[in-house]
Amino acid sequence: MLLERGHVMLDPKFLEFLDERYGIKFNDKRLVERAMTHSSFDNEHKELGIGDYERLEFLGDAVLEINISRYLFKKYPELPEGKLTRLRSDIVRTDSFARFAKEINIDKYLLIGKGEEKQGARQRHTLLEDIFEAFNGALYLDQGNEVVNEFLKKVVYPHIDSGEFSEDTDFKTHLQEKLQQSGEVEIDYKVIDEEGPDHDKKFKVELIANGKILSKGLGYSKKHAEQMAAKRALEEL
Amino acid sequence: MLLERGHVMLDPKFLEFLDERYGIKFNDKRLVERAMTHSSFDNEHKELGIGDYERLEFLGDAVLEINISRYLFKKYPELPEGKLTRLRSDIVRTDSFARFAKEINIDKYLLIGKGEEKQGARQRHTLLEDIFEAFNGALYLDQGNEVVNEFLKKVVYPHIDSGEFSEDTDFKTHLQEKLQQSGEVEIDYKVIDEEGPDHDKKFKVELIANGKILSKGLGYSKKHAEQMAAKRALEEL
Repeated sequence: MLLERGHVMLDPKFLEFLDERYGIKFNDKRLVERAMTHSSFDNEHKELGIGDYERLEFLGDAVLEINISRYLFKKYPELPEGKLTRLRSDIVRTDSFARFAKEINIDKYLLIGKGEEKQGARQRHTLLEDIFEAFNGALYLDQGNEVVNEFLKKVVYPHIDSGEFSEDTDFKTHLQEKLQQSGEVEIDYKVIDEEGPDHDKKFKVELIANGKILSKGLGYSKKHAEQMAAKRALEEL
Repeated sequence: MLLERGHVMLDPKFLEFLDERYGIKFNDKRLVERAMTHSSFDNEHKELGIGDYERLEFLGDAVLEINISRYLFKKYPELPEGKLTRLRSDIVRTDSFARFAKEINIDKYLLIGKGEEKQGARQRHTLLEDIFEAFNGALYLDQGNEVVNEFLKKVVYPHIDSGEFSEDTDFKTHLQEKLQQSGEVEIDYKVIDEEGPDHDKKFKVELIANGKILSKGLGYSKKHAEQMAAKRALEEL
């Protein structure tokens, strides 16, 4: 196959998915393609002149930061600065962004070179994080910040609202305080199952109070699963 | 003097200055007052219910980051991500933000408690940085991002354009390359003067090539003064 400069390699299925799921239509398809392209792919197809995601990542990093900051600032009018900062840094972590990246199928449609593909780069969390940032940078340039914010309402903010991040609501501490109102309670969390492949593992934990199983929780990390178990226990008390 | 809740302690001269110099009129004066208030002042005047700058700093930090990132992204369409990132981190440093803070008279008008005042907090760079961020957070909430961007066009971007930051244009390297085109050249930079009080020091350096003084430079740090000397020498070559 002989390809010419300007030929779009990004799978049109990704654009259809963005439109159907999020109502996003890029004006500049080359821009979103660049956001989805690793330098190894660009190097193998220099004749296409795609470029790579790296500069868009620089911009997208700041785009995500302002939107998430504004969301937290307004959602938690009473939270002091220190807790806001800890919560934000828990959200903008590599693993969180990698999860969001997979939620929008970045892992399926990103473009990488053959060598990187063999080494499993497609599932590497740092790469997925970078491309999630670059994608938001491209969306910002193409459609402006309010479209980015609408997109984040579907992809990021629901995870904040569900209490997945640490300074949001500390369900474990709440539960402990509640249970100890009626005397000493010994609370244990035990991992009872790990599901899924390494790059997409989920943890299941049991919450045990004074030897009795109170609830179970499923999460993207042990800590997250423990919080989810404590949350459920609180709901059931 | 008996003061009531809601009484504004921020000097109206600061608001006049913002209007005259930058065309900025805050709708919510309590908001800009809070941005200018250290917790020590709030604690001494609890009855006024001012609050302090800290949450606004959390927001303003991200506001500055996105605007400066966008400016750099557009100004340097060829600069790779690594250099953009280094340049951005050189701009968002404590000392740079403290300088910008003084440029808009934050040091004159900020509100701090008596104990902090005695300890010289008014000139502390970390405090000036924080309040500069908080001020931008307040401006963002009160007037929106485009007004912030217009403000930064007057207060921050000119410093970027003048080459004060390191990955922008490295005048020292350029000069060395240029001078060495006609053989080996020994280049020295010598600090010949330091002006101003500790919190607002300026450095003067001489640029000496093969024993001959080529130019002088004045800057906010030794590195900055050296860059300015090299810049001038390049202009004169």
